[in-house]
Amino acid sequence: MAIEIERKFLVKGDAWKKQAKSKLYRQGYIATKDGITTVRIRIAGEQAFITIKGKTEGIGRAEFEYEIPLEDAVIMLDKICDRPLVEKIRYKLQIDDLVWEIDEFLGENEGLVMAEVELKDEKQQVNLPEWISEEVTHDLRYYNVNLAKNPYKNWKF
Amino acid sequence: MAIEIERKFLVKGDAWKKQAKSKLYRQGYIATKDGITTVRIRIAGEQAFITIKGKTEGIGRAEFEYEIPLEDAVIMLDKICDRPLVEKIRYKLQIDDLVWEIDEFLGENEGLVMAEVELKDEKQQVNLPEWISEEVTHDLRYYNVNLAKNPYKNWKF
Repeated sequence: MAIEIERKFLVKGDAWKKQAKSKLYRQGYIATKDGITTVRIRIAGEQAFITIKGKTEGIGRAEFEYEIPLEDAVIMLDKICDRPLVEKIRYKLQIDDLVWEIDEFLGENEGLVMAEVELKDEKQQVNLPEWISEEVTHDLRYYNVNLAKNPYKNWKF
Repeated sequence: MAIEIERKFLVKGDAWKKQAKSKLYRQGYIATKDGITTVRIRIAGEQAFITIKGKTEGIGRAEFEYEIPLEDAVIMLDKICDRPLVEKIRYKLQIDDLVWEIDEFLGENEGLVMAEVELKDEKQQVNLPEWISEEVTHDLRYYNVNLAKNPYKNWKF
C-alpha cells in the first residue's frame, strides 16, 4: 500500500511540453456504490494496472496498485468499466527533485490540461513552474473518476 | 481472464468432510453501483487475491483474479470493504475428474453449507454425490456478494 499525497493544478501554455516524455493512457472505472472508493483499470502505454483507492484523508489517500495482463485490461475496459473512458496523454517532467505529471486530456475531456505533483508529506514546499495556473487539489470535479462521470466538455463556465 | 461456469448446491450431512482438505477464507467486497459487477478481496489461508467478476451470462461469468500481498488484503478488508465480511472454511474434494468446493460458513452466515463445482461447459453432466441437496445455482441470495449484504442468519424461513 502507498499513501498518495498530491497537489493538482491547471496548466497554461505549453512551455513544459518540449522536454517531457509522453505515454498514452486509457482508463476506466468500475462504479462503486459510495462513489468515493475507486476501482480503476488503466492501460499506460504497453502496461496495464488495476488500482484501488480508499477515501481521501486530508490530501492523502490509500492506494493499492497491481500490474495485470494487458489483454485483461482491454476486456475490462470494454465490458466492465463505465462510460465514457478517460483518455489522455501523460507527460512526465522532472524539475529539481520533483516529478511533474501533466495530463493532456482527449475525447470527452479535450481542452483540459492538468498537472499533478506527488509529495512526501502534506507540508512539503513546492516551487511552482511558471506554466502552472490555478490549484485544483480540492476541487472534486477534477478527479479522474469524476471526469469519467461528468466530462470537461459538459461543464458550463 | 477465465469464464467461470459453476453449479451451486446445498449440502446435507458431513460425509464429505473426512477426506477433504480445508483452508480458512476471509473475504469482503467493495460495493459496486450496479450490485452485479463484483470486486472481491479474499484471504485464502496465507495467500490473498483481488477478483473482478462481470455480469453473469447463463451460468458463465467473466472472472479476473490476481494474487496480491497479504498485508494489502488485510488493510483493504479492514478499511475499504463493506461489512459484514464473509468468513468460511473451504473444503476441497476431488471426485472422479471434478473438484468440489464445500463452503462451511462462519460468523453472520453460520449454518449455511454450500457446495460448488466448476464445469468446462454449461452442458457438462455431473454425478451428484449423495451428500448433495437442493441446487441453488440461480438463487441470487446464495451469491457470496449477497451473503455479505444479507447474511444467512437474517433470512426468514
